[in-house]
Amino acid sequence: MGKVHEGNSNTEDKKTEFSLVRVKSTWKSKLGKKINKDAVDSVSAAKIYESITDRGTSWTVVSPITFTYKVTETHDLLDPTNDTLLLGHITDPQHLEDIKKSNKPIRRFVVIDQEVFKIYGPKLTEYLEANNVVYKILALPITEGNKSMETALKILDDVNNFALDRRTEPIIAIGGGVCLDIVGLAASLYRRRTPYIRVPTTLLSYIDASVGAKTGVNFANCKNKLGAYIPPAAALLDLSFMQTVPRRHISNGLAEMLKMALMKHQGLFELLEEHGCMLLDTKFQADNTLYGHSSVKVASQATHIAITTMLEELAPNLWEDDLNRLVDFGHLISPALEMKVLPSLLHGEAVNIDMSYMVYLSHECGLLMEEEKQRIISCMVGLELPVWHEEFTMELIQKSLQDRLKHSGGLVRMPLPVGLGQAEIFNNTSFDILQRAYIKWCEELSVSSDSTCDV
Amino acid sequence: MGKVHEGNSNTEDKKTEFSLVRVKSTWKSKLGKKINKDAVDSVSAAKIYESITDRGTSWTVVSPITFTYKVTETHDLLDPTNDTLLLGHITDPQHLEDIKKSNKPIRRFVVIDQEVFKIYGPKLTEYLEANNVVYKILALPITEGNKSMETALKILDDVNNFALDRRTEPIIAIGGGVCLDIVGLAASLYRRRTPYIRVPTTLLSYIDASVGAKTGVNFANCKNKLGAYIPPAAALLDLSFMQTVPRRHISNGLAEMLKMALMKHQGLFELLEEHGCMLLDTKFQADNTLYGHSSVKVASQATHIAITTMLEELAPNLWEDDLNRLVDFGHLISPALEMKVLPSLLHGEAVNIDMSYMVYLSHECGLLMEEEKQRIISCMVGLELPVWHEEFTMELIQKSLQDRLKHSGGLVRMPLPVGLGQAEIFNNTSFDILQRAYIKWCEELSVSSDSTCDV
Ligand SMILES: NC(=O)c1ccc[n+]([C@@H]2O[C@H](COP(=O)([O-])OP(=O)(O)OC[C@H]3O[C@@H](n4cnc5c(N)ncnc54)[C@H](O)[C@@H]3O)[C@@H](O)[C@H]2O)c1
Ligand SMILES: NC(=O)c1ccc[n+]([C@@H]2O[C@H](COP(=O)([O-])OP(=O)(O)OC[C@H]3O[C@@H](n4cnc5c(N)ncnc54)[C@H](O)[C@@H]3O)[C@@H](O)[C@H]2O)c1
Ligand SMILES: [Zn+2]
Ligand SMILES: [Zn+2]
Repeated sequence: MGKVHEGNSNTEDKKTEFSLVRVKSTWKSKLGKKINKDAVDSVSAAKIYESITDRGTSWTVVSPITFTYKVTETHDLLDPTNDTLLLGHITDPQHLEDIKKSNKPIRRFVVIDQEVFKIYGPKLTEYLEANNVVYKILALPITEGNKSMETALKILDDVNNFALDRRTEPIIAIGGGVCLDIVGLAASLYRRRTPYIRVPTTLLSYIDASVGAKTGVNFANCKNKLGAYIPPAAALLDLSFMQTVPRRHISNGLAEMLKMALMKHQGLFELLEEHGCMLLDTKFQADNTLYGHSSVKVASQATHIAITTMLEELAPNLWEDDLNRLVDFGHLISPALEMKVLPSLLHGEAVNIDMSYMVYLSHECGLLMEEEKQRIISCMVGLELPVWHEEFTMELIQKSLQDRLKHSGGLVRMPLPVGLGQAEIFNNTSFDILQRAYIKWCEELSVSSDSTCDV
Repeated sequence: MGKVHEGNSNTEDKKTEFSLVRVKSTWKSKLGKKINKDAVDSVSAAKIYESITDRGTSWTVVSPITFTYKVTETHDLLDPTNDTLLLGHITDPQHLEDIKKSNKPIRRFVVIDQEVFKIYGPKLTEYLEANNVVYKILALPITEGNKSMETALKILDDVNNFALDRRTEPIIAIGGGVCLDIVGLAASLYRRRTPYIRVPTTLLSYIDASVGAKTGVNFANCKNKLGAYIPPAAALLDLSFMQTVPRRHISNGLAEMLKMALMKHQGLFELLEEHGCMLLDTKFQADNTLYGHSSVKVASQATHIAITTMLEELAPNLWEDDLNRLVDFGHLISPALEMKVLPSLLHGEAVNIDMSYMVYLSHECGLLMEEEKQRIISCMVGLELPVWHEEFTMELIQKSLQDRLKHSGGLVRMPLPVGLGQAEIFNNTSFDILQRAYIKWCEELSVSSDSTCDV
């Protein structure tokens, strides 16, 4: 998305600006910016710039598309009296009222991770029946291994057989990040864009995959090589799904949460530092044994902060056109590590190992104090995340950073913590300093790398 | 893409608005609209609205993405001294200068229709060699029959093997609409969006497929059922490709040109009315026999108007969110006709039959005078386009309009000419009037339906 450069001294490049106005059914181009708004029915935000060269005319079209989507916390999503799953994506109150008044049954196509269906299938079916929904539930064995265009096409076949109306019947995806990513892509392709709804059922997808615009499938042995940047109509967040998530997958999600804490929010860091073990034990649920009411409060605070900090970073950069991204923290070396050791590390685990090294690097650069560094590493250990890996080598670091240079417009754009909950992006980190940090990191962490929750 | 409704009297729906500002590397949300611009490094156009319900917080993200693309007339596109094919998409003059100064060879991946490659392959290869480009040309037998995701994936395999850099190496597509649509989709999927360049080699793709944002492939026996709305970085237009296009395919493109004439531009209509036969004979090329210099002038005028009128309608509605579209003229009944008689009618031919009926309907509604109606039909015949078809039945009309009602938010939104080069959109057309127009249309045109260029 380049920019249009006006006022260029080069006369060859002189551009004539046209606004676009609508009169009745017809769009007309009008010279210049001044529009008599009373004489037209509407004015578009789009512009056309015309320039004449010796080979003909060149038009530059500048046309903004506004994405609007909701990220909504709810509870009891599958309680038949909660209409969020069916209507929570609607932003126009008039439209909402019309639907509520209408007695036409609602139609919904639902894709759900088979494992999730095994647990929540009966409740889901009951919910749809109770609400008189005409539905089709497609329960699919979805894994990282079949996160492919083939699976997306299989879903699309069924969507098509359901004769889905793309204007009024969003596709609902229920599952972890794999399910949400595939369904999001399938929906975005269907009739060039069909709205979809994300219901995350893992912690990782709850605080990460649900909040942004990215969809994707793996291709040619590369993660998420094909995809689109189309946000869901709504992401509907219900923490109660977490109660059945395996403990290791809770840790996995906590890694992405810790990422936001380290980059932007000291308060979130302190919550994770203090209550990490509780969050793992209670799985973000109410608890009436050991921890009492504080568990719900902490769970809700922590997820709330994780989401708002994530939204702040994603909303201004929905299509990732700006390459300076704090959310890339932990994602510079980890993709190569993940690929190398697949499937032994989960995504969040690989991310955490990357972050752990970066914390050492930050300390080596004089950006983090020794005590801060130690607090962060202890917190990671408390979250039961690995902080070191033997395959995370100096060679891997260098290769990854070189690749990044190539794909990031010649700058490495490395986010590093500069204190607890604060970060900046750096472009000049010498081999020397990378190596010194690496040696210290190995010295201090290579032995303790499999301790568990004992903070 | 709904709208955010503010100032709602319903207190439950009260939304708090946050702006997004960047301080160093970090995005922060700021309450309200007033921002001290001196205290921040940038302000985003995106907004976040927060509202609290009894089930938790709901965030509404409103984030605009601006598409910028070029539509550029050129000539001698494959002349080695013309750098438009390699650099014509670049909008930033500084960037352009940097590339011109650099002595790194340019890399390009080119997908080209095999039939087009047979004719223009040697010139293309010579062009790339002469410009020292590191390239891969993928010449594919591309037809409506294999306009599929499978073909797109085959292209993507090769793109991936080429190790394409998605930030600096746009994929080039050369061919008719089928080729441009598939490659556009493949590129849009690769790494969630890789820029691509369209070089149309048929008249239809020159004035239609090149100008907008649509890409697509067929799926489950439906035309363009899967796709995306991602415009090319640039569409590069060279009329000289038309010289080898079969005469029937010139007519085919003229139908879409006539569509724009009827909807928006009497001058274009008069050009087609007067010079249609010449355009067919000369195939939009210079002519030094019968027609002399006027053939180039008319060709360039007509394509120029077709493109500007098309741009006016597409730029404000790039994602087709507005369902009231003049460019839908001729496309209400024709898709069903095309499907029914495949492959006997080309797209533009089916569109013309649809337009021909609509002209009768318009006349029946009192919107067009008898003489105007006759001039339009004569013009169509002059362009060697069919004006009637036995499979275009009253039943087909009704079924198509009912389908459209369903997919167009309950309104039929029928564009109709209301004079030469003017149109409006209508929603109430009775069965009676549809039928009366149909009967007249059959009476007057069913016999003469295969006359040729004799105006
Ligand atoms: N789109 C984005 O912005 C984004 C962001 C982060 C990650 N991702 C993607 O997300 C994927 C990883 O997501 P994930 O960690 O959720 O993996 P996942 O979807 O594979 O789920 C992990 C496991 O948990 C099971 N499961 C899901 N919900 C459960 C529940 N409530 N109870 C019990 N078991 C449950 C699943 O069946 C699976 O076995 C990756 O493919 C990654 O690329 C996308
Ligand atoms: N994206 C859009 O906005 C849009 C708009 C209109 C049409 N389309 C799509 O375009 C397709 C139709 O396009 P088309 O009419 O260009 O068909 P096409 O691409 O099939 O080309 C028609 C024929 O001409 C041949 N050909 C192409 N260039 C030639 C040349 N210079 N000389 C000789 N032969 C040549 C091709 O090999 C083919 O046999 C349809 O699939 C339609 O859906 C898309
Ligand atoms: Zn991640
Ligand atoms: Zn068309």
